[in-house]
Amino acid sequence: MTKINKDYLKLPGSYLFSMIGKKVNEYAAANPDKKIIRLGIGDVTQPLPAKVISQLHEAVDEMAVKETFKGYAPDLGYEFLRTAIAENDYRARGCDISPDEIFVSDGAKCDSGNIQEIFATDNRIAVCDPVYPVYVDSNVMAGRAGDYIEDKGCFSNVIYMPCTAETGFAPEIPSEVPDIIYLCFPNNPTGATVTRSELQKWVDYANEKEAVIIYDAAYEAYIRQEDVPHSIYECAGADTCAIELHSFSKNAGFTGVRLGYTVIPKKLVREGVSLHSLWARRHSTKYNGAPYIVQRAGAAVYSEEGKAQVKALVDYYMENATYILNGLKKAGYTVSGGVNAPYIWLKTPDNMTSWEFFDHLLTKVNVVGTPGSGFGPHGEGYFRLTAFGSHENTVEAIDRIVSM
Amino acid sequence: MTKINKDYLKLPGSYLFSMIGKKVNEYAAANPDKKIIRLGIGDVTQPLPAKVISQLHEAVDEMAVKETFKGYAPDLGYEFLRTAIAENDYRARGCDISPDEIFVSDGAKCDSGNIQEIFATDNRIAVCDPVYPVYVDSNVMAGRAGDYIEDKGCFSNVIYMPCTAETGFAPEIPSEVPDIIYLCFPNNPTGATVTRSELQKWVDYANEKEAVIIYDAAYEAYIRQEDVPHSIYECAGADTCAIELHSFSKNAGFTGVRLGYTVIPKKLVREGVSLHSLWARRHSTKYNGAPYIVQRAGAAVYSEEGKAQVKALVDYYMENATYILNGLKKAGYTVSGGVNAPYIWLKTPDNMTSWEFFDHLLTKVNVVGTPGSGFGPHGEGYFRLTAFGSHENTVEAIDRIVSM
Repeated sequence: MTKINKDYLKLPGSYLFSMIGKKVNEYAAANPDKKIIRLGIGDVTQPLPAKVISQLHEAVDEMAVKETFKGYAPDLGYEFLRTAIAENDYRARGCDISPDEIFVSDGAKCDSGNIQEIFATDNRIAVCDPVYPVYVDSNVMAGRAGDYIEDKGCFSNVIYMPCTAETGFAPEIPSEVPDIIYLCFPNNPTGATVTRSELQKWVDYANEKEAVIIYDAAYEAYIRQEDVPHSIYECAGADTCAIELHSFSKNAGFTGVRLGYTVIPKKLVREGVSLHSLWARRHSTKYNGAPYIVQRAGAAVYSEEGKAQVKALVDYYMENATYILNGLKKAGYTVSGGVNAPYIWLKTPDNMTSWEFFDHLLTKVNVVGTPGSGFGPHGEGYFRLTAFGSHENTVEAIDRIVSM
Repeated sequence: MTKINKDYLKLPGSYLFSMIGKKVNEYAAANPDKKIIRLGIGDVTQPLPAKVISQLHEAVDEMAVKETFKGYAPDLGYEFLRTAIAENDYRARGCDISPDEIFVSDGAKCDSGNIQEIFATDNRIAVCDPVYPVYVDSNVMAGRAGDYIEDKGCFSNVIYMPCTAETGFAPEIPSEVPDIIYLCFPNNPTGATVTRSELQKWVDYANEKEAVIIYDAAYEAYIRQEDVPHSIYECAGADTCAIELHSFSKNAGFTGVRLGYTVIPKKLVREGVSLHSLWARRHSTKYNGAPYIVQRAGAAVYSEEGKAQVKALVDYYMENATYILNGLKKAGYTVSGGVNAPYIWLKTPDNMTSWEFFDHLLTKVNVVGTPGSGFGPHGEGYFRLTAFGSHENTVEAIDRIVSM
């Protein structure tokens, strides 16, 4: 008789963004006359850069001709893309990462969910609280998180690192020693960052404890301040303790195109085994590569035209971030983030819970945000707004909120 | 201290096709003047159908304009694609599968590797022997396969169902009762099929034992004979015991485009839990959808033009299959498959092992095939050739082999 994976049943409710989608769809169906503005899920709204479009067309044409048709991609991804990544995202920043330490994938969400597979079940993970839910959820599904403690809204075997107003929404090194540490800077959902010297402390700590840091750099394109690192490999010794995840979703607008990559330095060894070799095995056994046309689109991002167009796109969203940040501040909200990140993190007014404020915004002014409690227990009483809307919608949403 | 997943270390050697790639690349590097013909990995060689190309271009153009730009896809996949699948692959065949029982993905390889996650670790799996290596390998990685028994070339906790010349390369119901049964028809690598009434026995058995069948239908487009089912849901009661995996790789040539889907009927329940809900949770938590442009390409496959073009593509490869089958037969080889499948399964001559014959073919006539032993212990002494080459290459390869 088939037995199911009962760890799945420990997950409370639906995946956060599925739940938000459901609530919004129900409200929209009951109120077809309302114009709902979505600043909830971190989905982009602006079209793909022109250079990406032209490269997609070129690649599609190649697939139409026998001589240039491409079947299965190489295991790690096409070399033209991995070389461009190594050159632009790493070597240009002084990080010694080579193309064969890069694994091209269909996005950072899959990689951040799947990466835990290469580790034993009895590792203890540490996560920022609040944080992007996939890190905890994927570990729950793998039986690594213990049991859900209803009244605390957390899992018994996970080390939560509170990121609160008092700490500038940055985590502090926990008193219990974790085996795997998830860090995400610029942070989703708080928009917080750490400086290079602060991140160096985490790298040193991980090396000392022989822990592994899984560093999610999905939002690095939004970094504006000089002392905020774009990659964990800017820290000395990170190549013996850190895996880094990257996305093309938020810089080049690939949420619906699907492309990302994961870096595992060959020097990263635990229990005498190369983590690169383990991930390579997973990649070749359970994955079959990102589409050729999409990898070509990714390479376009690193061309001169592509870089300029991506910069313009990021600037566009950062204008929204500034508008949200200033608008809410002026209206008396307590806000943070939005400087090196496309996310604005605000304290809910009048002691409303995160979901109460969600319902309040949805029903009063038809604006969708994300309840902070969906990102962890210390997200309760907070709310995330994204800068990924259009200018017009963002302005209208903030104007609606401040005049509530 | 981080502990690695030691189940990964139980996997012998590399993933089969990575190993073949390595051997071929080494030979090619040492013999740059030789023209190597690859009939090894099941990768297609002909360009995408014209209707797929035109839909890809249209979809790319939509991504260039704000009004038609698409971000994250719906969790299960776009409705236009799921509706086309339900209508054409199921309802047209009398199978009562609805669009919301279909999960669109980036291919059957990922799904066949990931599907085991929704089951407990202490399930016992049964596989055809020989068979596509992902089923066993992904279960090894999850700790479900026991230990590798070197001299037998098999895992201690896996039920192998020998598919031999004596059984027409079809499996027989095993004496030990499995919890999860992997079936793949038309079979990779043997090209064998079962009739509808034979498959009905497996469905009845699974329902009786409350087991689950994972049915890989990746090659269904190659079925020519009337009494061979295209879907397991053609059998009564399959909706309470079977999950079905589909690919666009081998019908429409999407090996480098990446699209597939998995069907989990809502009636399929084990231990009181809907497997559909478990897979939906995995899909939303650890996956982010196939690219919009690729889903549009998939929908093109179901258009009238698309259907005709896909049929022509399949016919093209089946001409190759016939040429290989007849050519090898005439030369005295013992061959099977190739009638309802793009794979030809041959007995190695002169008692050579599978890898000996691999080396023999590669070095003597520069033809690449796949060693049968890579698909399981009962594949030893056999060899797989694929019909996915060009006509010219296929003819040349067979002519080289028969004149060896």
